Amino acid sequence: MTQFDKRNITMMMDLYEMTMAYGYYNQDAQADRVTFDVFYRKNPDGGGFAIFAGLEQIIEYIENIHFDQDDIDYLRTLGIFSEQFLEFLKTYRFTGDVYAFPEGTIMYPNEPIITVHAPLIDAQIVETAILNQVNHQSLIATKTRRIVRAAKGRAVSDFGARRAHNVDAAVYGARAAYIGGAVGTATVEAGKQFGIPLSGTMAHSWIMFFDDEYTAFKHYAETYPDSCAFLVDTYDVLKSGIPNAIRVAKEVLIPKGKRLRGVRLDSGDLAYLSQQVRQMLDDAGLNDCKIIASNSLDEFTIASILDQGGQIDSFGVGERLITAKSDPVFGAVYKIVSVNKGQACIPRIKISETFEKITNPGIKKVYRIYNEKGYALADLLTKSDETLDLSKPYQYVDPSKPWKKMKFVKCTARELQQLVVKDGKRVVPVKTMQEIREYVDKQLKNEIWQEEQRFENPHVHHMDMSPAYYQMKMDLLAKMQNAVE
Amino acid sequence: MTQFDKRNITMMMDLYEMTMAYGYYNQDAQADRVTFDVFYRKNPDGGGFAIFAGLEQIIEYIENIHFDQDDIDYLRTLGIFSEQFLEFLKTYRFTGDVYAFPEGTIMYPNEPIITVHAPLIDAQIVETAILNQVNHQSLIATKTRRIVRAAKGRAVSDFGARRAHNVDAAVYGARAAYIGGAVGTATVEAGKQFGIPLSGTMAHSWIMFFDDEYTAFKHYAETYPDSCAFLVDTYDVLKSGIPNAIRVAKEVLIPKGKRLRGVRLDSGDLAYLSQQVRQMLDDAGLNDCKIIASNSLDEFTIASILDQGGQIDSFGVGERLITAKSDPVFGAVYKIVSVNKGQACIPRIKISETFEKITNPGIKKVYRIYNEKGYALADLLTKSDETLDLSKPYQYVDPSKPWKKMKFVKCTARELQQLVVKDGKRVVPVKTMQEIREYVDKQLKNEIWQEEQRFENPHVHHMDMSPAYYQMKMDLLAKMQNAVE
Repeated sequence: MTQFDKRNITMMMDLYEMTMAYGYYNQDAQADRVTFDVFYRKNPDGGGFAIFAGLEQIIEYIENIHFDQDDIDYLRTLGIFSEQFLEFLKTYRFTGDVYAFPEGTIMYPNEPIITVHAPLIDAQIVETAILNQVNHQSLIATKTRRIVRAAKGRAVSDFGARRAHNVDAAVYGARAAYIGGAVGTATVEAGKQFGIPLSGTMAHSWIMFFDDEYTAFKHYAETYPDSCAFLVDTYDVLKSGIPNAIRVAKEVLIPKGKRLRGVRLDSGDLAYLSQQVRQMLDDAGLNDCKIIASNSLDEFTIASILDQGGQIDSFGVGERLITAKSDPVFGAVYKIVSVNKGQACIPRIKISETFEKITNPGIKKVYRIYNEKGYALADLLTKSDETLDLSKPYQYVDPSKPWKKMKFVKCTARELQQLVVKDGKRVVPVKTMQEIREYVDKQLKNEIWQEEQRFENPHVHHMDMSPAYYQMKMDLLAKMQNAVE
Repeated sequence: MTQFDKRNITMMMDLYEMTMAYGYYNQDAQADRVTFDVFYRKNPDGGGFAIFAGLEQIIEYIENIHFDQDDIDYLRTLGIFSEQFLEFLKTYRFTGDVYAFPEGTIMYPNEPIITVHAPLIDAQIVETAILNQVNHQSLIATKTRRIVRAAKGRAVSDFGARRAHNVDAAVYGARAAYIGGAVGTATVEAGKQFGIPLSGTMAHSWIMFFDDEYTAFKHYAETYPDSCAFLVDTYDVLKSGIPNAIRVAKEVLIPKGKRLRGVRLDSGDLAYLSQQVRQMLDDAGLNDCKIIASNSLDEFTIASILDQGGQIDSFGVGERLITAKSDPVFGAVYKIVSVNKGQACIPRIKISETFEKITNPGIKKVYRIYNEKGYALADLLTKSDETLDLSKPYQYVDPSKPWKKMKFVKCTARELQQLVVKDGKRVVPVKTMQEIREYVDKQLKNEIWQEEQRFENPHVHHMDMSPAYYQMKMDLLAKMQNAVE
């Protein structure tokens, strides 16, 4: 059910992955093992965190990487690869190891979400597809969470398929939205693929097909007496839509012992209209009829509607969720951090004029550090061969204030990366959507400070380093700087 | 080669398409013929036009609509459809007619780009997938054209796969970018599917794998003596990257009679660095070495770099192109405009408080009106049974100033919609990417006013109506208003 459909997406990569792969092959370096980290630099929308999503699809992709004959035939036409290399590609499979945060983990800038340890060509070839999947699904999951937060416990559903950036963005976007806290989607394929609850009733076209709104509602109620929700803004919400909805509820549904489940507002002043509508429904004895709102909603409009006393029970959110309109680029990158030389792993660092753009070199571990109450105080990078002992006060380095002597006291730690692919094969069970979704929820309710979750000036999560890791990075930087100058 | 891959995307629809379909089926209304228009309301980024893209994929989708057994099985689990209806779906095919603008047509708000005449269920079921495809590809084609315009004749390539909203957005986004005027893409699958020229050389990881930049360049030059372009910003562009590039050009390439094709700048002040780099390359006799720039580019940064005298020959544009970052929602909608009653077509109109949101009712024709020099003066809507005669002055209505007596004098007209699907089958030949791309170019060079193409306060293209069409719309509006009040 959760498989990434049947396409072979091996060729969904930047050409340079292949030109480099062939270059390494030509240097006989293809078997040299290297390590790449996936990380991102900035939370979307100036938020305090992001949600890691897309891992299941990445594992499926990695297990299935292969070049079909028509791929080889196409690559031959480019005129840059030798026949020997094309022959090598015919039986090529990914044979490396992949470590990753569990899907749904709350994540922060500059920490390795995914780490690939693999022969050089393997590690290079997966770059584009891994980033594409992480970037898209993490973007939508994170954006959805913002909208869910603004809705303060009211249901948020994904209605975005028609404005998504093509088919995958609708289907995998619905998946990511569900991870982020949406209660469901309107996209049927996403319901089918991932078991996400579906919702959907009628468009304006249903109303407009019939000669009048009353007849349209009546016919709908006859077909769906148990799940009847009317779209009430085709002509005039207060003068036509709601009166007709109430009339059909009384004439068709109530005599059968059924109730009108909802009315949907898709235009106009939702704060004002919803209050009028609530009053009219209540006056008609339809207190249990829910009010659903849609129409260019996002976290800001929802907060504003609720702030004005809008009487809305659930939100259908479309284009601004499915495109993450306010900040539609999630910028995860894939950087080489270590090269094996015999038994040694030589750390690599990418320098930059901007301190934040300097990479964290070497193979490392990432821990989330919790205080006694279970709140996440910080994330900590250590060298891979260090043992973290928090049974006594632990001195760490805040790289933005390395002169300060800081200690974790009475803390516990959780190592965030897990081995998910070993020698090219999945070594973790498939997670259900429900598990991933509940994991997100649990972290945000019990572990992550509310101060990191607010929209305005959220608290910046601390990204600390073990003294040994910090020293290694500084030594490497100094060495690099000397080499250039 | 151009097929929309092998997935069955019939289920990539909003659930309400199915709940309505079943409702119509239950009313025995499924064979009633109706007409829906696809149109949009606002050009992206405040521009003066948009480019229609995605038609080939829509035709392929429509020809292939069918429910597989596992689709039926899933729909059954929803518990809302009768067995009889599920049986009906098993052999269901789209049997309607589709009219559309030729792919690549310059389009404007509120005109029907696509019109579907079909039995009610057929017309309803295709809504989501048609909009999804039109919205995505038109968005990216239009955004790309803005970037191409800013580059003033310099090449623009799509480098966006890793930041695209999942796999389709990378592949079909590359297609749309090529239609919009990009010279190529880095995305291998898009090259394979659509024959789009590919480009790509190396990432920072190539440089960082080797012990130093000089060695990395040298090895690359040995593998690719004919297409050698170096990424020069891994350590320091001016102190390391360019000196090493020049050294390798002289030591490896020139002795073989080869030339260094290019250097790529991926960070830093591109305006400043490119001028320094140009001077260094020229001083070294590498006047023919091109400078390629990448790193968060769009139409605004490119215009600014060129304005500052940046010496850039070609641009690799990633995230801001492939997500249309500045305005990532293209809002095409699908509205019912006519319902058949026996032989009559009864026009339908969607009213709204906002005049611009009132739909254009009825089955209509759309013409582009050209002056004697071949420039497009306006688009014109007429009733479908009108004959447009421009051999003498033609009086039309500008709906924003209906009191003015306006005339087209010595003009010619082109009808924009063509029949593309008849009784569910394609009736137009497949267009090559080259044809579509050249068609876009030809229109923007020879037909569309420069005043509509500028970014700041572009001229608003006139959307006029025949007197008979305008009268029909006004009569319908008056009737609707009376019915509500």
